Amino acid sequence: MNRLFHFQLSPFCRKVRLSLAEKKIEVELVEERYWEKGAEFLRRNPAGKVPILRYGTKTLTESAAICEYIEERHPEPPLMPRDADGRYEVRRLVGWFDDKFHREVTANLLYERVNKKLSGQGYPDSTNVKAGAKAIKYHLDYMGWLLDKRRWLAGDNMTLADFAAAAHLSALDYVSDVDWDRNANVREWYSKIKSRPSFRSILADHVPGFPPPPHYADLDF
Amino acid sequence: MNRLFHFQLSPFCRKVRLSLAEKKIEVELVEERYWEKGAEFLRRNPAGKVPILRYGTKTLTESAAICEYIEERHPEPPLMPRDADGRYEVRRLVGWFDDKFHREVTANLLYERVNKKLSGQGYPDSTNVKAGAKAIKYHLDYMGWLLDKRRWLAGDNMTLADFAAAAHLSALDYVSDVDWDRNANVREWYSKIKSRPSFRSILADHVPGFPPPPHYADLDF
Repeated sequence: MNRLFHFQLSPFCRKVRLSLAEKKIEVELVEERYWEKGAEFLRRNPAGKVPILRYGTKTLTESAAICEYIEERHPEPPLMPRDADGRYEVRRLVGWFDDKFHREVTANLLYERVNKKLSGQGYPDSTNVKAGAKAIKYHLDYMGWLLDKRRWLAGDNMTLADFAAAAHLSALDYVSDVDWDRNANVREWYSKIKSRPSFRSILADHVPGFPPPPHYADLDF
Repeated sequence: MNRLFHFQLSPFCRKVRLSLAEKKIEVELVEERYWEKGAEFLRRNPAGKVPILRYGTKTLTESAAICEYIEERHPEPPLMPRDADGRYEVRRLVGWFDDKFHREVTANLLYERVNKKLSGQGYPDSTNVKAGAKAIKYHLDYMGWLLDKRRWLAGDNMTLADFAAAAHLSALDYVSDVDWDRNANVREWYSKIKSRPSFRSILADHVPGFPPPPHYADLDF
């Protein structure tokens, strides 16, 4: 059985979970309290990060490398376009969300509110929370602008770029940090992706001590 | 003419420069003072980052996406293996250097010593410099361990993983922050990669106010 060592609210883990589920690859989820840096965990991944995918006899790390590997091994249904230009755009947007959005929004909101408390690092820093609340508006506008011209974020088909974005936004939605009224395109896009069967496991997540808001799992949010 | 908007000591720009040079794709280098966040620069890349590659009529951003695009458009000489397992290992290591190494080493040493001063953010924080100086040892040991079993970092052939690593290490070497005596495997590996024609432009870099040490461009360092 394949195993994914993960943390429920990690956007990088969620992106991998969505890829696996969309490709119907069964995987046992094992919760990893990565901030405790246990010896067994560090042996599996000296980088000290989740996700870690135990896939057959291989141990895979780095979410972008994992998703590309899954795509190459299980090309159907495709989560990457066939042409170089299309593939570039998917990778650019995955980079956008996993670097820029992560640093400006996810780290300032989700990590301040949840990860800091879980890992015993204390209370949210209000300067960071304010910066994150400001930055997410700009990112939602950018997504809305892309979706004005495209059905999905990178083009006409759903790709890894949508999963990268939905992974961050769903984790932020778990702590009510997404204003779905800001942009109608983004709300419609999230409604489409949220109703996919591959999203069900993510909507069922529950972190002890941090109950999700009622709208979190509601398809009519 | 293709154009690369870059900053000389940026490891992400260096990785792209090495890829382009290895594939013999000519490009005009345009120095970008990215920290000034000029309007023209932000129009080219709203992410506010370098490198930005003007390639024909396309404007490409995100170094990982750029390198994969170059690889798909110009497969010779190959900088990625053909098999999924080999490609995974390259992408994992590119992720290792561009995320973990960057955060633990490059940001703590190079950015503290150079980028902070250039962008008017003041003097190096000695706590960060100490953390970086400690972390680089662990990374050099990890590289040495990989090179005990492999000719190049990801396997028998030179790949993007070597360019990612060499991009960070060469930028750190510019400020004398690499102890080449620590690991013989790493020194031998860097000596091989440093002597490639694709490395020449990087060895000729010169940032005003920060002269490189004499060994920086010396192939017999």
